Amino acid sequence: MTTTTTDTITAIATANGIGSIAIIRISGDEALSIAKKLTHKKDLTPRYATLTNVYNHEDELIDESIVIYFKAPFSFTAEDVIEIQCHGGFIVAQSILKAVLASGARLAEAGEFSKRAFFNGRIDLSEAEAIAQLIEAKSEDAAKILAKQMKGSLKEYIEQIRDEIIHILAYSEVSIDYAEEDLPEDLIEQIKDRLNSLKDSLSKTLSASKSREGLMQGFRVAIVGKPNVGKSSLLNSLLAYERAIVSDIAGTTRDTVEEQLKIGTHLIRIVDTAGIREADDEIERIGIERSLEAINSSDIVVALFDNSREIDSEDEKMIDLIETHSENKKVIYVKNKIDLEAKFPQGKIAFDLELNTKSGVEELVELLKSYMDTTNSSDEMMLISHRQISAVENTMANIDEAFMPLEDQELEIFSFHLNEAVKEMASITRPFENDEMLDKMFGSFCLGK
Amino acid sequence: MTTTTTDTITAIATANGIGSIAIIRISGDEALSIAKKLTHKKDLTPRYATLTNVYNHEDELIDESIVIYFKAPFSFTAEDVIEIQCHGGFIVAQSILKAVLASGARLAEAGEFSKRAFFNGRIDLSEAEAIAQLIEAKSEDAAKILAKQMKGSLKEYIEQIRDEIIHILAYSEVSIDYAEEDLPEDLIEQIKDRLNSLKDSLSKTLSASKSREGLMQGFRVAIVGKPNVGKSSLLNSLLAYERAIVSDIAGTTRDTVEEQLKIGTHLIRIVDTAGIREADDEIERIGIERSLEAINSSDIVVALFDNSREIDSEDEKMIDLIETHSENKKVIYVKNKIDLEAKFPQGKIAFDLELNTKSGVEELVELLKSYMDTTNSSDEMMLISHRQISAVENTMANIDEAFMPLEDQELEIFSFHLNEAVKEMASITRPFENDEMLDKMFGSFCLGK
Repeated sequence: MTTTTTDTITAIATANGIGSIAIIRISGDEALSIAKKLTHKKDLTPRYATLTNVYNHEDELIDESIVIYFKAPFSFTAEDVIEIQCHGGFIVAQSILKAVLASGARLAEAGEFSKRAFFNGRIDLSEAEAIAQLIEAKSEDAAKILAKQMKGSLKEYIEQIRDEIIHILAYSEVSIDYAEEDLPEDLIEQIKDRLNSLKDSLSKTLSASKSREGLMQGFRVAIVGKPNVGKSSLLNSLLAYERAIVSDIAGTTRDTVEEQLKIGTHLIRIVDTAGIREADDEIERIGIERSLEAINSSDIVVALFDNSREIDSEDEKMIDLIETHSENKKVIYVKNKIDLEAKFPQGKIAFDLELNTKSGVEELVELLKSYMDTTNSSDEMMLISHRQISAVENTMANIDEAFMPLEDQELEIFSFHLNEAVKEMASITRPFENDEMLDKMFGSFCLGK
Repeated sequence: MTTTTTDTITAIATANGIGSIAIIRISGDEALSIAKKLTHKKDLTPRYATLTNVYNHEDELIDESIVIYFKAPFSFTAEDVIEIQCHGGFIVAQSILKAVLASGARLAEAGEFSKRAFFNGRIDLSEAEAIAQLIEAKSEDAAKILAKQMKGSLKEYIEQIRDEIIHILAYSEVSIDYAEEDLPEDLIEQIKDRLNSLKDSLSKTLSASKSREGLMQGFRVAIVGKPNVGKSSLLNSLLAYERAIVSDIAGTTRDTVEEQLKIGTHLIRIVDTAGIREADDEIERIGIERSLEAINSSDIVVALFDNSREIDSEDEKMIDLIETHSENKKVIYVKNKIDLEAKFPQGKIAFDLELNTKSGVEELVELLKSYMDTTNSSDEMMLISHRQISAVENTMANIDEAFMPLEDQELEIFSFHLNEAVKEMASITRPFENDEMLDKMFGSFCLGK
């Protein structure tokens, strides 16, 4: 899979936007010669931060930058790597990137740096996934778990499991070889016990991983309720309340409003069902459709009801919608406008929270925070991608399939399933060649990684 | 102004958002000890890119990063500086920043790194301004001009002018001292000639600077026209046409829509007067108000008229509005929907461009590009801030004031004005102490710079 010559790739490695520094990264055989050409330097000392002018391919000065040469194999990709730290913003890094491209590099595909690191044996797949997710981490707790995995903690766990299956396999085979007659019951029981305790461990990891998806992906919160119940005001209060890091999310269109904000140590996304469509003719149908979409795509549902209005068919529909679609979700029922005269029937809903039109958002924030914190109570190992989860599920399925042949003493079938289980576990860190899967996985990384 | 001990400041130096790398910068006496504490390293070799674990103040692993120590005075601020290159995204850099703050640094104010560089004599004010603007540069042409100024090209020009005034002053004083009687006419003429040629040079620089404000700040384009004339479709076609770099601009609210896009080498902002308010009751009044606002805040006005409808009072108002408010602006008159039956009266407006409902946006892009490129035809020195412009205006005013006393041989007054002129020019690079001005200037820099 490794080739002796590679083409040279480049990308901007820092986020797009206004900042004082941006980094252009170059990796491959031509990295050093391109850097020397653009800096007019005779040589660059490995690992040394050199302050130098940077010129474009037409020899016009474009910036003064720090240039660092990471000599192969002591770099992220294990190839020659150059990092150019230039001034930030929209233009300078783009100009330098253009000059690098004009000098013979090509634009890296998403995840291509990591892919090279993987193929050159610098990192395994579980570490690559941890790095990719660390960048997109939505909470400090998630980041800490990922930092450990990036350093190989998941790999260690995987290898323990794999080793234990191999042990069981070896132990069974040896015992069976030496058994003169039928296998003794206690030997079979012993092996079953070991398989069961393996299954327990995997199953704990699986369920911890699934329940903490919100922690890793960022909790998605849907604010639902019929028109004019106060969804927009609530959203605006939330945004105003903790606006430490707020950014529009790439890919949202003008029609769907999604806001990102930090609550405690969590970065959450709010799916706003309020929005511009409320002036539409088909208001009710679309309202219900969009609420349903929002509920389905969220981890937490904040359901708003208007204290100052009689309950109506829209409220009823909303209640029904939530009840039938919120399995595995946290629902927070909120009675709004409690400073106005109460008309909403008492006892119809067990409200978690009452807000008045102007304030009270602190309590909602606290409620969200405490819910999100409790999903992080345990420190167990967790799986961080669908790929990893399905590998563990397949491992467990193969272990399950091994019980019956063990009973029946069909030892070839038993061995076959445990061998499959080993392969499945191993695929988490280093799969048997499967280009399509790898392309798909690395393709989901961000550019410049 | 320099003190022997300084407090230690820190900030995230890269743009906020998803990227593979982020940088935290620390400057001050404690920078090295903080870095050693968080990396568990005994020492850091200056300028050497060290790959190391980074722990938070509670000794939990938070990332694996490249750490570089820039030993004073060989750093941007001339103080001890540490750069931590960690994984990008929203959380990791924030966690490291938190750990740095918990270890004794304080959050840098906007521009504080540059301010320290200035006070420690690493850069002069014109260089500091060039760096700040380079980061916010809106075109490659602007970036090239700024890169030169960052390396001192404006400083050289300023010093030439300053030296020439001092020469004239010295020459006048010496000549006058040695003149036994009244000053000879030809001596006075000579001095006048030199002052006039100085004024010419400054005046050229001034007008080049003013006419190229769009180049530096990014051209702002307003699309105006009455409702349903096709403003939104045109905007969407433009966005779809060159979406190389598009981003929402921080600070825009939901009520005003501003889009940023790259046309050729220019980053432009489009002020959209279409927007959501068109469904409003007070449509006409607000439409006019918003159009006026958009025209006033833009460099280029794209005025749309509907070929398929009779001219009406709203069109007339729009024409009037543009004619009375577009002094010093480029106006592009566009006839839209030419694929539909023509009802708009011929000859009423001299249209620059005709578009049909579906296509034709390429021609508009070309028109915009050629206009923006011509504003960059000359390579003269240019001033990049209001501060610099007003210093040059004051210099010219003082030179003007010197002519009369020269004629009248009131040599003290003549000298006074030329000395003032020297001071004004010098203030561009290194003003006499004026804390308030400096605070204001550096305060406009981005964080982490």
